[in-house]
Parts: sequence; C-alpha cells; structure tokens
Amino acid sequence: MKNFFRLISSRDFLELYDRFAPLDAETIPLAQGLGRILAADVISPEPLPPFSRSTMDGFAVRARDTFGCSESEPALLTIAGEIAMGQSGTDLTLAPGQTAIIWTGGELPVNADGVVMVEYTNQPDKGTVEIFRPVAPGENIIRAGEDFPRGATVLHKGQRLRPQDLGVLAGLGITGLQVARKPVAAIISTGDELAEPGLQPEPGKIRDINSTTLTALVEECGGIAVPLGIIGDDAESMLVACRKALALPADMVLLSGGSSVGRRDFTLQTLEGLDGSELLAHGVSIRPGKPTILAKTGNAALFGLPGHVGSAIVVFHLFVRPLLRKLGGAGATSGLRMIRAVTAEQIPSTIGREDFVRVALEWGEDSPPRAVPLYGKSGLLNPLVRADGLLIINRDTEGLDRGEPAEVMLFP
Amino acid sequence: MKNFFRLISSRDFLELYDRFAPLDAETIPLAQGLGRILAADVISPEPLPPFSRSTMDGFAVRARDTFGCSESEPALLTIAGEIAMGQSGTDLTLAPGQTAIIWTGGELPVNADGVVMVEYTNQPDKGTVEIFRPVAPGENIIRAGEDFPRGATVLHKGQRLRPQDLGVLAGLGITGLQVARKPVAAIISTGDELAEPGLQPEPGKIRDINSTTLTALVEECGGIAVPLGIIGDDAESMLVACRKALALPADMVLLSGGSSVGRRDFTLQTLEGLDGSELLAHGVSIRPGKPTILAKTGNAALFGLPGHVGSAIVVFHLFVRPLLRKLGGAGATSGLRMIRAVTAEQIPSTIGREDFVRVALEWGEDSPPRAVPLYGKSGLLNPLVRADGLLIINRDTEGLDRGEPAEVMLFP
Repeated sequence: MKNFFRLISSRDFLELYDRFAPLDAETIPLAQGLGRILAADVISPEPLPPFSRSTMDGFAVRARDTFGCSESEPALLTIAGEIAMGQSGTDLTLAPGQTAIIWTGGELPVNADGVVMVEYTNQPDKGTVEIFRPVAPGENIIRAGEDFPRGATVLHKGQRLRPQDLGVLAGLGITGLQVARKPVAAIISTGDELAEPGLQPEPGKIRDINSTTLTALVEECGGIAVPLGIIGDDAESMLVACRKALALPADMVLLSGGSSVGRRDFTLQTLEGLDGSELLAHGVSIRPGKPTILAKTGNAALFGLPGHVGSAIVVFHLFVRPLLRKLGGAGATSGLRMIRAVTAEQIPSTIGREDFVRVALEWGEDSPPRAVPLYGKSGLLNPLVRADGLLIINRDTEGLDRGEPAEVMLFP
Repeated sequence: MKNFFRLISSRDFLELYDRFAPLDAETIPLAQGLGRILAADVISPEPLPPFSRSTMDGFAVRARDTFGCSESEPALLTIAGEIAMGQSGTDLTLAPGQTAIIWTGGELPVNADGVVMVEYTNQPDKGTVEIFRPVAPGENIIRAGEDFPRGATVLHKGQRLRPQDLGVLAGLGITGLQVARKPVAAIISTGDELAEPGLQPEPGKIRDINSTTLTALVEECGGIAVPLGIIGDDAESMLVACRKALALPADMVLLSGGSSVGRRDFTLQTLEGLDGSELLAHGVSIRPGKPTILAKTGNAALFGLPGHVGSAIVVFHLFVRPLLRKLGGAGATSGLRMIRAVTAEQIPSTIGREDFVRVALEWGEDSPPRAVPLYGKSGLLNPLVRADGLLIINRDTEGLDRGEPAEVMLFP
C-alpha cells in the first residue's frame, strides 16, 4: 500500500466531499420535473396574474361609485355588460356609474378597481344593480403581478420540485426546467460465491442481494442505477468492471463485497490502479461500516462497501446518499428524517466509535417512540426487514441505558 | 337535482371509501418493485440461508474438539482443506480432530458446527492449527434456514417495498412480485378561460395550473396520471371527457374548476348523467374545499375538485390521496407525515367546520416548530410555494390562540 491510513470519523469522511463538484444542469420538460432539483433560481418572466382578476362572482365596479352605500341607501349602477369567462376585460370600459357582471378569475374591465360579491347586490331589472356594501379599491381582486411581479424569484436553486411548484411554473408558462443532472451510479457485486437471483444457485453459492438493494437505494435517492452484475474475487475482473463503469460514464461506482481482508486488498489495489485515482479514505470509526473505502478519479467517486447488505445499507445512508445528493444539486446531507426516541433496553458501545443500531420503533400515545434494537448474528437479513431506522450512538459514550433519549435516522 | 345533500364531515367523507374495492394485483419483475405495495404475503419458498454459513474468516470445527482449550493449552487440529468462496462445503467431511479453512459466508463442511475466528488461532505449519478459545455449537455460523425457514412469512400484504425488502426477495430467488396495480387517475381541467401552459394565452385567458399540479400529485402518490387536457364550460364537453376517461379505463377521474355555482351545476349534471353513476357527497364542512363532489360508477371514483389550485391541493391530500392509496393496496389514509407545531399567531376559525391553513414552519432549537399561517387573497399562488404543510383546526373550536399546539400535515 502506498499510503498509510487511519480510521477517520464520519464527519471527516463527509468533509472529503468538498472535493466533488455538483453535476452539470440539464433542461427537462415541465411534465418530468417532479422531485428534480433546480439548478438555477426561477425568475418570473412575466407578471402573474397577467391581468387584474376577480376573486369572486359578482360585479366589477369603480370602487368610488360604491362609497357610502348601505342596505338602506344602495348605490344604483348601470350594467354595461358581462365579462364572460375567458373573455378579455379590455373589451369593456366602465364609465362613472357603470358596472359589469364578472366571474371568479375573470379579467377586470377597464377602469374597474374592485368587485362586489353577488350576495351584496340586487338586480331590480336586467340593466341595473343595487349595491348594498361599499368596496375599497383592490377589494376582491388580484392585481396584475400581485402574485409574482415580472423578475421576481419564484423558486430557488437547490429546491426539490413539488407538485405545487410545478403548478406555479405552469402558470408562468415555464415549460422547460433547468435541473441538476441525475447522478449515475454503477453497481458491482464482487464474490466467487454469488449467483444471480433469478437462477437456482449451484451448491455453496448464494444469491446476490447487494445489487438489488443498492440499485433500489440509488433510485430511491433520485439517482440512475446501472447494475453491472457479479464479478469474481480477483483484482483484474474488478479493474475491468470499474473501467467499464467509468466509461458509461458513471459519476459513482459502488463496489460491494470487499470487506474481508483479502477482498479489501483487491479493492484497494483496484482503486489505486485506476488512471488518475486518489484514495481518500480507507476505514471509518463507525460500526457497522468500518472497512469503507473511498477513492476519486476525475469527479467520479468510487466506494468500496462492506459485503454484508446490512452494513452496506448503513454506509449507503451515511455516506453514499449525501454524495449522491451533492452531485445531484441538493445539499451534501443524507436528507433522511431524524426523530427522537427512547431506548427500550441498554445498548452498549465503545468510546471513539459511532454505532448505528438497527431498531424497530414502537409508538405509544404521547411520548416519543421506543426504539427496540434488533440484534442478531451478523449476516442475518431478518432484522433488516423489521427495522424502521438506525439509532445513533455518538463516539463519546460507552453506550445508552434503557430509557435514554437517542436520535434515530429513519429509513426512507 | 335529484338528491338533497347536506355538508358532511371529512370523517364521513372518508367512510364512503368502504364502497370502493382495492384494485386487482399484477405481477412485476423484482427490479421494478421499489415503492410498490404487496398484494399478498411473501412466503419463503426455501430456507435462507440455503446452507449453514460462516459469519467469520477462520476455521470450521466440530465444536466439541475445541472444548476446554485455552491460550496455554491450545487444541491442536489437523487442517483437512479449505472451503474456497463459492465452493460447496459438502465436498469436505470433518473427521474428529479435523478442521477446514473457511471464509465469511462460506458453506460449512460436513460435521462442522462452529467457526473459530482466525484471531484466536496459530498455524505452526501448513497442516496444523492451534485453537486458543473454545467455540460453542452454532457459534460464528448462521444455520440453514435460521434467517427465514421455508414457509416463513417474509413480508406482508399491504407493505410498501423498500430497498432492503427487495434485497431479501432477491436473496430468496423471488424475481416476480405480486403487487397491487397502480391506480389510473384521469385529470380534466374545466374552464373557458384556461390556456395550455406552453402557449401565450389570448387576452383574458390564463394558463392551466391544475392539470400540471394534479398530475404531479397523483404521480407522487404512486398513481398513473393521464391528463386529458382542458375542456370548456359546458356539460356536454364534460360528459364526453368523463366517458373518455372511464373508457381508458381510469380508476378515478379528477375534474377541477367547477366550484363557482354555475360550474358546479355542470359538474353535478355530468356526474349524475353518467351511466350507473351515484352521487355520494356534495359539499364537505371544511375550508377550503367545501364544494367537493364525489360520485361513483362501477368501482371508479369521480371527484369534482375546487377550481383554485390551493383548494384543490387541500382536497387532494385530504380525500383523493386516501382513495388512491386504498385502490393501490395501501391503507385508506393520506399517509402524510403529521407533526406537532405551535401557532405563531392567532388563527380564527368557525365551530362546525374544519380548517386547513397553509403554514410555513420555523424550526427552533428544541421546541416544536412554529407554524406561521400564510394568508393572502384567495387565488394567490405565492403562499402555496412557501408553505410546508397544512395546520388543522378541528370543528369543535373557534380557532387557535397564539402559541397553542396544533397538528400540521406536512406536504410530501
């Protein structure tokens, strides 16, 4: 090995991400925008609404024509016409003493500056209306540009687009969106013992779990997963697979399986053997996940993940997710929901190491939920499907007593 | 109108969903399973792991051969061979006093019932190993079927499939999944004033916001949205569009725009005029969303939603989401996250009506977040993009004082 590595903390690991740049932007149609991350602020290209609109069914008026009117002394106005839905209000100009029938959302006629709700009117004949309540200028209308004036910042760079945000973009006529490109993550499972899930494994072999799990984790996080299949336990196959991944081009390569000593050496050898690669981390003071490796070539990240899927999932949430999110234009955080829980039993740990304990949550009436640790032999999958999240034990403690508060990172 | 309708509560509205049946199941490949809802329990078709495996790198032993050994009096065993990764353990049978080199995940040789970690051994020569610590039967191994015996229930009907669940299914060789079919929701915007977002609207017209918003809301909730475009303000167009939607076939039709009195009449007329339709609700004692209409034909639901997008979003989360989820095999609940907040200012309401107030959340250090109501004229979109969720005011209160606790339904 060319470098000497010591275990680093999870915080130091995350600080390595300063060396990676977010991906370029791409333009996509509005209809594909859900959940995507804006690569630039959205500036309103025109005023919204484009014209002054009524917010009520009723009568568009010159507000001053209603001043002082009351139930006993209604203002009497002449109906100059109706603004049908979708008809331009500029077709009609109100002279003093005139009004126009208008509907919710309709464009105000020229000179109108308020709308009287139909409930406060009476029509003695087709051409006349009595107004029982005065309106102030601006009442029951939205002025042109009141929602968003031209040039207003409507949405911000880095925002994840929600349905309501897309609706507003539609309202502004913005049908092409500048969003961060989705990061592409190539997934490689290593191990002579692995078989494809769809086939009956030969004796001594087991089905590959990590490819399926990591593919879904990447997709869940908004990335594009490219599973490259299973490769054998040798550095040459691994190097070929990594080169193939980088040629996709992938923004990230997830190698899993290399946690036993011999395999980790292959992984190291491979990651060091790639053109222009730099080893950034080799070992993190966390459990599980200690043997995690991170290398970099160009702006692409290469992870060596633990072989056991339970450990690989922890490392994914702690480290892969934040980098996927950073590359994809969101913050370099996991973005996972954290909640406070109390431990259902004593959980031992070791000073100087962060522990991430799979827990099932039991929700009571009012109090925070109880976090029940799901122990079990390393390698069991059963606790994994029962777990709701990971309880975090900080590095400065020897563990948690029963009933102690703790943070739980919820699985997505 | 054939029926007399009164305002019903949101709870009564949700109880109408007893009349709708979940959709049929469909079979999909494992790789498409992320986020889908299981339509049946998953039963393990074989034991997992399929054979007894080592959880450590070390020596597979007959545990009794190690009993009583110690640092000072190691057990001396003969190395009968190595189980290479992926090699069947049945190739090798341990006689008393024999051991085999084994790797994490490897299949135990015949007669082995424990594994000694390599750390507690010493190899004086190629054919011999000294064992310094005894192991109990079952130690450092996972027995065949210990994770999931054949016939065990691995995952339950109604569960949403997470990455780790898919991983376990891969491990069991289950590559076809029985999941609930995704509900298809047709989306129709009504209004003579509406224009397609991609075009410059004619004078007096505005761009259609609801189609884009409702499409994204349906997709976000796991449904398949089919936007059918804009139709004019007449019952005949609406009837034609609804028939087209039902012929897709759609499981749900979302009509929006029909909240003003005249339009609501068209919507009612249309929904009553469809073959075999039944009007289930017409008016809910909530704000916003009071004019919501629900009808049913066959197992398909037809919603008349408010025209203003802010109100339509509230009705979507309160009513459309739970039905989409029920049709799609999950529970008939919104599935949205609820949190507790305190009000940042007084919020008035009316007894007998539930209010859903758009709020922005301000997170402090320790306390629950402050919920700042985003008022603004009806029809403004600005508060919508700034809101984090809906603060709920129950029907039995006249409002909330400043600093009072309240539940907030978070936008997804």
